[in-house]
Amino acid sequence: MSDIIHTKEDLLRAARMVEPYVHRTPILTSATLNSISGAHLYFKCENFQKMGAFKMRGAVHAILNLSEDQKAKGVITHSSGNFAQAIALSAQMLGVKAYIVMPENAPEVKKSAVRGYGGQITLCPSTIEARQETVDRLIADNGATFIHPSNDDQVILGNSTLAKELIEDIPQLEYIMAPVGGGGLIAGVALAAHHFGANCKTIGAEPSVVDDAKRSLLSGKIEYNETTDTIADGLKTHLGDRNFPIIQQLVEDIILVEEDEIVSALKLVMERMKVVIEPSAAVGVAAVIKEKERFKGKKVGIVLCGGNLDFGKLPF
Amino acid sequence: MSDIIHTKEDLLRAARMVEPYVHRTPILTSATLNSISGAHLYFKCENFQKMGAFKMRGAVHAILNLSEDQKAKGVITHSSGNFAQAIALSAQMLGVKAYIVMPENAPEVKKSAVRGYGGQITLCPSTIEARQETVDRLIADNGATFIHPSNDDQVILGNSTLAKELIEDIPQLEYIMAPVGGGGLIAGVALAAHHFGANCKTIGAEPSVVDDAKRSLLSGKIEYNETTDTIADGLKTHLGDRNFPIIQQLVEDIILVEEDEIVSALKLVMERMKVVIEPSAAVGVAAVIKEKERFKGKKVGIVLCGGNLDFGKLPF
Repeated sequence: MSDIIHTKEDLLRAARMVEPYVHRTPILTSATLNSISGAHLYFKCENFQKMGAFKMRGAVHAILNLSEDQKAKGVITHSSGNFAQAIALSAQMLGVKAYIVMPENAPEVKKSAVRGYGGQITLCPSTIEARQETVDRLIADNGATFIHPSNDDQVILGNSTLAKELIEDIPQLEYIMAPVGGGGLIAGVALAAHHFGANCKTIGAEPSVVDDAKRSLLSGKIEYNETTDTIADGLKTHLGDRNFPIIQQLVEDIILVEEDEIVSALKLVMERMKVVIEPSAAVGVAAVIKEKERFKGKKVGIVLCGGNLDFGKLPF
Repeated sequence: MSDIIHTKEDLLRAARMVEPYVHRTPILTSATLNSISGAHLYFKCENFQKMGAFKMRGAVHAILNLSEDQKAKGVITHSSGNFAQAIALSAQMLGVKAYIVMPENAPEVKKSAVRGYGGQITLCPSTIEARQETVDRLIADNGATFIHPSNDDQVILGNSTLAKELIEDIPQLEYIMAPVGGGGLIAGVALAAHHFGANCKTIGAEPSVVDDAKRSLLSGKIEYNETTDTIADGLKTHLGDRNFPIIQQLVEDIILVEEDEIVSALKLVMERMKVVIEPSAAVGVAAVIKEKERFKGKKVGIVLCGGNLDFGKLPF
């Protein structure tokens, strides 16, 4: 294996920096889910993280790593989802201005959450071109630093801290299962599993209808989705040049799951474990249940990546 | 104050007996809920208890206290809700037969949960008379011992164990807030607060439309409800002769909340704390938010009594 981009010391430094700003989230177990899957499952509850998702870790780490001059001018990102809230809250905690570009059609609840954390929202038409123009204009006007939700080294390192905590709590973990969207989560998880695990393998889980990461692993180049019609709305994006090499080196496999399997897993976790998760977080659960034979009797960590569920759209 | 019916030693014995059979549930905190209420809230998560509710504690304690002869003949209860599951699961764990009388119109999901725990269901028409006849007939036929869901000393002592744990974890607690239905929960909580707390007061929370317990405290005798149209379907029942004296002695007050306040509290807990609770568990949360001035700056334990929510009837 060629050199890993980020060293163990990089991850330890990220953990030290992030620690004062995030919750060390609990790990839950469930006799029912263990019985259904046949594995020993350890759920890392990032749904209990500040603002309700792991994204807080990458966002705060990225801002902490800016220069004083950069911090004085503020940060900018585009997101209609959790990363917008994560940047807004992180920036607020660190006394930094946050510009958030959101599509006009973003749900009001997401806009008001960003506003509640002090983020300054600029709405734009819901096209990639309009979004980029808006971001470029705001950067030109204010000198703010752009932070990408997933394809950013400091975001990846920030995300790695959740898997470091999980392995510290469950040192004999044999697998960690993480959902794959833009690749920032699984890249961070895989780095921590590599540096801190005792032969702990990282496996991805992805909805079949947005299987870009699975295809990317097979073809050896970043692939894109032609359909995005999945309930796991956090997983529609594609990998990037910063996280793909890490994923190629360190992720053993990506398991594809169907939409009905995601809904079943979502229902199972909410009804039996009594925790609220978003559909993207159910994808890893669905994958472990789908491939029972592979994980039978194994100690498997599952990243419950977030809990920002739209109850109005509950599919059961 | 006249003598308390159950001594500290009774409660310690109950805790020792129950401990191997139940989860020591976690206590969650929430910066958001603290900010909204102005108090320091400690949520005792009995929604994470086995079968999803505190009822497990009283049920298992009641069965453990039977004679060998009684255990050999089995136990019987009537319930369309959590106590049916609690008796079925407790009996299964202890190798005892459980007869569960349920109304014909009980939801299929509740019946199948009881069956899943090995309970033997007998359906009856949904009237108090038919229910009693069915219970009497089963007792005559099988010699099973009846266990009441809330008006039973061993059930009350079993329930006390959750508040003992809460006070052990948060010794400086000033209040514990518990919802009031049949009175078995709050009686157990009040006993533990009295024996183990450092001047910790017990306060009840009850929906206005089923305010029988509030009226009972005022009149000095057990009062009944004429309407039962509350979303908090675990709280429709009335107090009994075993728990009412304890409540009279040890419960400082009962706070009434409206249906819209319960729904708001339910939404708040699920959206912000990311845990699934049933409407009855939201009643205590609603009470603390309603009486902000009273609890301002105080350390308040809130019993999240259960998490068996019917997602198909989610009111938001």
